[in-house]
Amino acid sequence: MEQPQEPKESAGKPPLRVGMVGYAFMGAAHSQGWRTVGRAFDLPLTPVLAAICGRDPDAVRQAADRYGWESAETDWRELIARDDIDLVDICTPGDSHAEIALAALAAGKHVLCEKPLANTVEEAEGMVRAAEEAYGRGQLAMVGFNYRRVPATAFARQLVDAGRLGRLRHVRVTYLQDWLVDPEFPLTWRLRKELAGSGALGDLGAHIVDLAQYLAGERLAGVSALIETFVRERPLPVGSSGGLSGGAVGAETGTVTVDDAALFTGRFASGALASFEATRYATGRKNALRIELNGEKGSLWFDLERLNELWFHDGTLPDTEGGFRRILVTEPDHPYLGAWWPPGHGLGYEHTFTHQAHDLVHAIAELRSPEPSFADGLQVQRVLAAVEESAEKNSVYTPVN
Amino acid sequence: MEQPQEPKESAGKPPLRVGMVGYAFMGAAHSQGWRTVGRAFDLPLTPVLAAICGRDPDAVRQAADRYGWESAETDWRELIARDDIDLVDICTPGDSHAEIALAALAAGKHVLCEKPLANTVEEAEGMVRAAEEAYGRGQLAMVGFNYRRVPATAFARQLVDAGRLGRLRHVRVTYLQDWLVDPEFPLTWRLRKELAGSGALGDLGAHIVDLAQYLAGERLAGVSALIETFVRERPLPVGSSGGLSGGAVGAETGTVTVDDAALFTGRFASGALASFEATRYATGRKNALRIELNGEKGSLWFDLERLNELWFHDGTLPDTEGGFRRILVTEPDHPYLGAWWPPGHGLGYEHTFTHQAHDLVHAIAELRSPEPSFADGLQVQRVLAAVEESAEKNSVYTPVN
Amino acid sequence: MEQPQEPKESAGKPPLRVGMVGYAFMGAAHSQGWRTVGRAFDLPLTPVLAAICGRDPDAVRQAADRYGWESAETDWRELIARDDIDLVDICTPGDSHAEIALAALAAGKHVLCEKPLANTVEEAEGMVRAAEEAYGRGQLAMVGFNYRRVPATAFARQLVDAGRLGRLRHVRVTYLQDWLVDPEFPLTWRLRKELAGSGALGDLGAHIVDLAQYLAGERLAGVSALIETFVRERPLPVGSSGGLSGGAVGAETGTVTVDDAALFTGRFASGALASFEATRYATGRKNALRIELNGEKGSLWFDLERLNELWFHDGTLPDTEGGFRRILVTEPDHPYLGAWWPPGHGLGYEHTFTHQAHDLVHAIAELRSPEPSFADGLQVQRVLAAVEESAEKNSVYTPVN
Amino acid sequence: MEQPQEPKESAGKPPLRVGMVGYAFMGAAHSQGWRTVGRAFDLPLTPVLAAICGRDPDAVRQAADRYGWESAETDWRELIARDDIDLVDICTPGDSHAEIALAALAAGKHVLCEKPLANTVEEAEGMVRAAEEAYGRGQLAMVGFNYRRVPATAFARQLVDAGRLGRLRHVRVTYLQDWLVDPEFPLTWRLRKELAGSGALGDLGAHIVDLAQYLAGERLAGVSALIETFVRERPLPVGSSGGLSGGAVGAETGTVTVDDAALFTGRFASGALASFEATRYATGRKNALRIELNGEKGSLWFDLERLNELWFHDGTLPDTEGGFRRILVTEPDHPYLGAWWPPGHGLGYEHTFTHQAHDLVHAIAELRSPEPSFADGLQVQRVLAAVEESAEKNSVYTPVN
Repeated sequence: MEQPQEPKESAGKPPLRVGMVGYAFMGAAHSQGWRTVGRAFDLPLTPVLAAICGRDPDAVRQAADRYGWESAETDWRELIARDDIDLVDICTPGDSHAEIALAALAAGKHVLCEKPLANTVEEAEGMVRAAEEAYGRGQLAMVGFNYRRVPATAFARQLVDAGRLGRLRHVRVTYLQDWLVDPEFPLTWRLRKELAGSGALGDLGAHIVDLAQYLAGERLAGVSALIETFVRERPLPVGSSGGLSGGAVGAETGTVTVDDAALFTGRFASGALASFEATRYATGRKNALRIELNGEKGSLWFDLERLNELWFHDGTLPDTEGGFRRILVTEPDHPYLGAWWPPGHGLGYEHTFTHQAHDLVHAIAELRSPEPSFADGLQVQRVLAAVEESAEKNSVYTPVN
Repeated sequence: MEQPQEPKESAGKPPLRVGMVGYAFMGAAHSQGWRTVGRAFDLPLTPVLAAICGRDPDAVRQAADRYGWESAETDWRELIARDDIDLVDICTPGDSHAEIALAALAAGKHVLCEKPLANTVEEAEGMVRAAEEAYGRGQLAMVGFNYRRVPATAFARQLVDAGRLGRLRHVRVTYLQDWLVDPEFPLTWRLRKELAGSGALGDLGAHIVDLAQYLAGERLAGVSALIETFVRERPLPVGSSGGLSGGAVGAETGTVTVDDAALFTGRFASGALASFEATRYATGRKNALRIELNGEKGSLWFDLERLNELWFHDGTLPDTEGGFRRILVTEPDHPYLGAWWPPGHGLGYEHTFTHQAHDLVHAIAELRSPEPSFADGLQVQRVLAAVEESAEKNSVYTPVN
Repeated sequence: MEQPQEPKESAGKPPLRVGMVGYAFMGAAHSQGWRTVGRAFDLPLTPVLAAICGRDPDAVRQAADRYGWESAETDWRELIARDDIDLVDICTPGDSHAEIALAALAAGKHVLCEKPLANTVEEAEGMVRAAEEAYGRGQLAMVGFNYRRVPATAFARQLVDAGRLGRLRHVRVTYLQDWLVDPEFPLTWRLRKELAGSGALGDLGAHIVDLAQYLAGERLAGVSALIETFVRERPLPVGSSGGLSGGAVGAETGTVTVDDAALFTGRFASGALASFEATRYATGRKNALRIELNGEKGSLWFDLERLNELWFHDGTLPDTEGGFRRILVTEPDHPYLGAWWPPGHGLGYEHTFTHQAHDLVHAIAELRSPEPSFADGLQVQRVLAAVEESAEKNSVYTPVN
Repeated sequence: MEQPQEPKESAGKPPLRVGMVGYAFMGAAHSQGWRTVGRAFDLPLTPVLAAICGRDPDAVRQAADRYGWESAETDWRELIARDDIDLVDICTPGDSHAEIALAALAAGKHVLCEKPLANTVEEAEGMVRAAEEAYGRGQLAMVGFNYRRVPATAFARQLVDAGRLGRLRHVRVTYLQDWLVDPEFPLTWRLRKELAGSGALGDLGAHIVDLAQYLAGERLAGVSALIETFVRERPLPVGSSGGLSGGAVGAETGTVTVDDAALFTGRFASGALASFEATRYATGRKNALRIELNGEKGSLWFDLERLNELWFHDGTLPDTEGGFRRILVTEPDHPYLGAWWPPGHGLGYEHTFTHQAHDLVHAIAELRSPEPSFADGLQVQRVLAAVEESAEKNSVYTPVN
């Protein structure tokens, strides 16, 4: 697909040249976002898919062609050294986030970093310091909690902000998947602590901690946690085995060093109670992120498997007329929807990345601190650290530092 | 409604003369069960609504007339002393369960006792001892966890027993109501520890602990809990204020001495993880008992607000054909359904009491220990006690004794 | 179950002595209604289950014992001749409705007649004339469209009456069952025109025509119809084969003389458009009566398989907040609910018969013409006749006389 | 967004240079499809967004920039005359489909034409003749019934093809929207017969006729129809008023010359019965295309507002285990899904256009007649013509020619 001409409309708009590190699942999703955002929205800057980076020269070249990147790099240091890169988009496993982000910020780049921000609180703290210094130089740093960018969750946040729930009492969140149920699923990088940092906790739990705090508009004060690894020995993958769909395995096995499931309860700063569950063993649940908030005046819930819907109960209606209503979040006045299709013509998972790109481009153009910031990412790490600490200490209630 | 003739069909069947203590919400529901069970099912004994007992002479007389009891008593000791009573059905608040049950068992009666079995583990232990001795004398004792008698939960148990879920990994249960959201709701007996024992924990939590263990087919080994009372001061009721719908209040206030909400996680004996939430502050949720079990081979979930449905995922089907299926549990071959209406003609909440009566009558006729037994009720109390202990000890993981 | 004492509460209340003809599915359901109504509601009259009538002496005696009727008769003429019967409740197949109803009215009884009112318009017309004359003598006559007595449909009617839907544009109704899918299901009375009058049309179609007109608050002006019998030859039943669950069959077959499915469109008097489908061949649909109304200001829908819920869309809300809300019709202020359980504790199918009895008892005590009247039943017959006429005439649009 | 380099991967793959006529709603959706298809799928040809065409020079230039087209034309004849265009994609209102398609085919181009194929059967017949001749010259012609390309409907078709439903008995389809409920919505082109051909019938009805026949695997033999225009006089729009969201209106009014709603029943060739409803007056229904098929062995249903789900009932399971199951059509082995995200990460409306492009590119590369062909489009037109004829003739059953 050739698109050689510079769009006339954006003639006067400066480019935002993106360099992305990583080209697996997240790389594909971010590519779709960067490629599409300028086609759906009027933007103050023109995103350019300038370079993609990965260690395997053939694979990264293929990814560049497939996803529409102008050039390919095999060393992220080279990418960062390039003058024609404005923003570094980090889509690698968590163990390399800190190093790349620090280097990119030091090199004067804006940074978008996939979640979780880092594998440890210490790394994340360093990233926040660097981001704050860089902000003084006009560089922005955002962490990729894309589920804030579902129109339904963004609209939920508007309802909460408008006081429609009143004083908050309960938040309950589950994020259920089932791709590890089979004990023969291979020991991929996501099951190795040294690469992934943690298991369901960092992968799924990070999402729901961020989303819960975002929607509640406040932070968790402390947690009590149970963590479990159900299957401790798994076959090693053969070849460059893959993502969530597994792949070929050999006769050798290795030890799973991350959690399979994490359950925790907690208290918000306001005294509201919360419960969280993240697991990859919920047979039949594919991507079931479900969140509910109950306040004195109303409640709402959302299910990622039906992401175009928000369920809202207005507790101020007469008892006989109350009930959760299914709002199809596809009206022109809903967040992000003005750019898309007529009412009822739903969006998909990938749109969250387009919206993330939209928000980041605006933040850069307007030099506003983007949300969620690295500080937000660090705070989520601190919650996850408190979860791990509580789990190690017999589930004792553990304050979030 | 006169029904003076002795049914011919049951001419040869001995009567089972029931004496019930209490005539509020549970009394009405149990009356419906006893009145209906012999009309829907062929029974080996003929239940007779012999006597109803309550302290207020006028009110209990009215209740007898309304609900169809032959006679009324104002002192439960008198009721128990009567020779023409075979079974004592205890529908009072939890603080009197132990005393009445012990006296009834000592007097040679069968006993059906509403849940929770007692307000303390100690009381419950005494009841179990008495029940075991009485069983040697041919008397039965059952605790009223009626949610085992929803056809959908009974069928769920059959699926679990048949191994359709495989090795269990997760159980998650919530029981959400919202009748305390209004801070002006009066301080009724359910909010006073000396009468109710506990709040949401004993009222709702007891149900879900029993149901979870019943469906899992195993017991909780330990728990970690958070308990909260959101509104600590409430107006005192005026007059004989009522049940879940509140009633008139005065200017005076009193202190709520029970919990408003209880959240806990736990481990089953097999290592499966569990989460529980019981609350009366979930705005918009009226009677939302929802339970899900995930096993290696399948999953199921159930929602009390749609009690004629069971959702089952058969994980052994091809990936492309999997999915939770909505089984309408209204087929003639489903538990209890042979006695009722054609497929799709659903049952209601009250049928659980009819089915409970059915099972108890059969157990008595066949001299089988009924389920759930007092020992089952005690074990639930021990879980609740562990929950309270954990909550007092900073949520530390606390084994169930 | 003995209940020999006259209830004190109703001491001053005159009895309403019911004689019921028929004791199959509908007989069981009506029995439950009559037996329960005085236990759940305060009534101005005390219903007495005085006599049940059926041709087989043993079977009717058994039914009397099972369902709680004081006496049994084997000839409906004898029943009607009895002085101690105030109301005749007709639960027989449609071919005998007219004869029994006319005789009962002539004998000075109130009449409750199961739907459809009759097998032909001519019979129904005679019944209406007799009912109108009898009304002058203080006798009431009601037809048993029990689905008006689901709390959710009764509440829906209140919303429509209050103008919450505004000008009506669309009504769509389906009533789907699947018990005839198997071509080996026997040729029971429901499949024989001389007994049943028609098939899915009279059985299911009558219900949805009445419910649609009741909720719309207006009548159908004309229809265009397709009618089909998919399986024209079926095995004859062996013995007194049964209801919707079939039963044993022999080698002989017979011809199905009723419709298997009926589809029709129509216009309401106001110009609103309507569509109807009644079938017994919708594999997987057990009792799926689903109705939706769309008006200029709002919409609502209801599904009998989830009969405690009404879905309401208030079109006057802002676009971003609109959506169908699931009203749990279990609040004390919802129709009939004050007599039952706390919010969220749902009712079942059989409660419609209890509510029907409630409304009829009140109408008799207050000498109000009951709804739905025989005239309402006749009008439904006229719609069904127009449906059959249209189907015979190549679906041409046929006015309802 | 610059993408100047020719993708290495597709170096050896010939381009497929697309010229698109029209740039409104459908133009935006088709652009997204063409732009994305080569990024998600491995294709035998490389689609090139060569030229976009529209009458307003500024607007079309803007659209080219926005949607990523290399060049812009203001006269579709010029577009067709260009040598560097291989395929003409027609996204204009129906009145110009025939003329453009005939010219494009005559000029040796492949053609993709939006639905409905034409405004009259005569036009459509001419298009089919031209398409058949062109096929002999290696040119393909496809009509854009994009709802065949929802993974869930494509998978439904596979289940039907595999005999999982058995002999078909019922098909029921509704397509409900509500954007015309407001009588002040302006008289846009979609409400003028000379441009749109018909109203809800051609716009929504065409979709559901095609989808029903596609899933059933057979054709409608005849129909009986009711058509209505509820609001006959509407304000004229001011300026180039828009799409489904209306726009500014003036004081002048004009006459609506198309239908607001169309209801029809029909018979399939096999004798299965069908019902259809298309309306723009179903308050609260935004894009509610819902289809259900019932066969002797199973059933399925689909709702476009939840397009990642297919509900399947396998009637061969034991009665106690039957029930509609919610298949999340997001597994790698589901149609089109291998190219997208992990299980549970749903797609949106726009993906149907990407999949349509995918199928057309493969058909062209393999010189296979694409589905749906112009002949399929003509057959849908014939159904719509029969619907209109029936409606004019008092709903009489009218064979589809």
